[in-house]
Amino acid sequence: MNYTLTPVKLIENWFSERYSDNLQLSFRVRDQLLSVKTDYQRIDIFDTYDFGKLLTIDGTVQMAENDEYIYHEMITMVPFYMAETTPKAALIIGGGDGGAALRLLDLGLERIVNVEIDNHVVELSKRFFPEVAKSFNSPKVELIIGDGIKYMKESKEKFDLMLIDSTDPVGPAEGLFDPAFYRDASRRLNKGGVIVTQSGSPYYQPFALSKAKEGIGSAFSGSMTYVAFIPTYPSGFWSFTMNPSRGRGMGEVKPGRYFNGDVLKGCFSLPEFVKKIID
Amino acid sequence: MNYTLTPVKLIENWFSERYSDNLQLSFRVRDQLLSVKTDYQRIDIFDTYDFGKLLTIDGTVQMAENDEYIYHEMITMVPFYMAETTPKAALIIGGGDGGAALRLLDLGLERIVNVEIDNHVVELSKRFFPEVAKSFNSPKVELIIGDGIKYMKESKEKFDLMLIDSTDPVGPAEGLFDPAFYRDASRRLNKGGVIVTQSGSPYYQPFALSKAKEGIGSAFSGSMTYVAFIPTYPSGFWSFTMNPSRGRGMGEVKPGRYFNGDVLKGCFSLPEFVKKIID
Repeated sequence: MNYTLTPVKLIENWFSERYSDNLQLSFRVRDQLLSVKTDYQRIDIFDTYDFGKLLTIDGTVQMAENDEYIYHEMITMVPFYMAETTPKAALIIGGGDGGAALRLLDLGLERIVNVEIDNHVVELSKRFFPEVAKSFNSPKVELIIGDGIKYMKESKEKFDLMLIDSTDPVGPAEGLFDPAFYRDASRRLNKGGVIVTQSGSPYYQPFALSKAKEGIGSAFSGSMTYVAFIPTYPSGFWSFTMNPSRGRGMGEVKPGRYFNGDVLKGCFSLPEFVKKIID
Repeated sequence: MNYTLTPVKLIENWFSERYSDNLQLSFRVRDQLLSVKTDYQRIDIFDTYDFGKLLTIDGTVQMAENDEYIYHEMITMVPFYMAETTPKAALIIGGGDGGAALRLLDLGLERIVNVEIDNHVVELSKRFFPEVAKSFNSPKVELIIGDGIKYMKESKEKFDLMLIDSTDPVGPAEGLFDPAFYRDASRRLNKGGVIVTQSGSPYYQPFALSKAKEGIGSAFSGSMTYVAFIPTYPSGFWSFTMNPSRGRGMGEVKPGRYFNGDVLKGCFSLPEFVKKIID
């Protein structure tokens, strides 16, 4: 009997992120474009059908082309408008994809220092997400490949915004959730400025949120948590934690594709189960 | 060569809901407890590891033991507090699991008519989710197995709250998103009352939200949409749409496990991409 090799491919390729041993979100992918083990972590790039290109670190989704705007708007625009004076200088710890710097440039920041520990994140973003990583071409952005904890301890510069755009509090980012880091940060933050950190999924990672709250709370006499819906992150629900700040009573804010003036007000309204984590 | 049959089971059982051809959320399950094809739909019950028992209809998650409180609080407590007079009588269309009726009883409603088209949903909820379905034992709850569209057209009773707790606008629930249904509903709603419908995931089902907005908007001169985070529903982000109503200026509201006074205010703050769907 003769068989004919046909070009009909019946095998599907899926990338799955396990949220626990018992739950996973799976993206059908055209291909895995790259996999690299760096000194700090493993980075993979996928070409998904529904969310465009996807960057994962140690198996967890960091950035998807089609919804990165939500995370990046929320980690930049909320602190920008919550600062008590118009921010001019910003520090980003992590953020090697360039997405946070890109939005800060849009918001008119004049100087942005971006300290990313893993040069490979930057290089891969430039290659696979050029529309996001183009921020690194701006003369206003100074990219430092180095340890954000060390930078925060040793730098003499001061900033109006400080964004901790890190991975989760395991591995290289663990120290970015410690009170000692935020005590150093408090000496680098100008009066009326805002420091914010991503603080994980309240549903799956309540420890990330409570650690962020303790770290920021101990250095800044309190903290404020806000939330956003991000479909490609675990549970679809994400938190950010910042120092207490009242904003500067502007009228209209500039809307993004997710962020707007209503979101600025509503994002601090926390469900009861989230309040219980930080109470 | 002899092989020994060992009791070590290496096969894992997963139930997956496909959000599109290219994206799925998967729950690891101990077992599938039941599968039944009714006159209206296919119903399955799973015993999951992370979310307790799970009821699906036509392959889509309807109710998970561990997070049903979010959906059911949001479809009851928001309209309860947004009504302009204290609600006493409520109509539920769908809601065969009993979860909406349960919260309305907690809120002090005196009469609840629950019209569910598929008796099997009620029977399976009583068997697998007795803590939710126990609402049907209350003398304040009248359960009618029948067509909600027909009931709305023919009933003479009036209500302070009307909750359209249905499946998505395909199959038996399609007519529940039509303007004709809401015109009938408007004759059953007392002055100062609230009618609300679940209106799907704004991210994956923008058509459900825009259909709900058109249906309610045409019968009630406008509509209001609010949102909630529900981890077991597509994208983790869900919408509800109601007639315009201002509430009755109460002070404190009774908190639930998700709902509280902050959520009541914040849930109407819509991300820019959601506003674009209903603008």
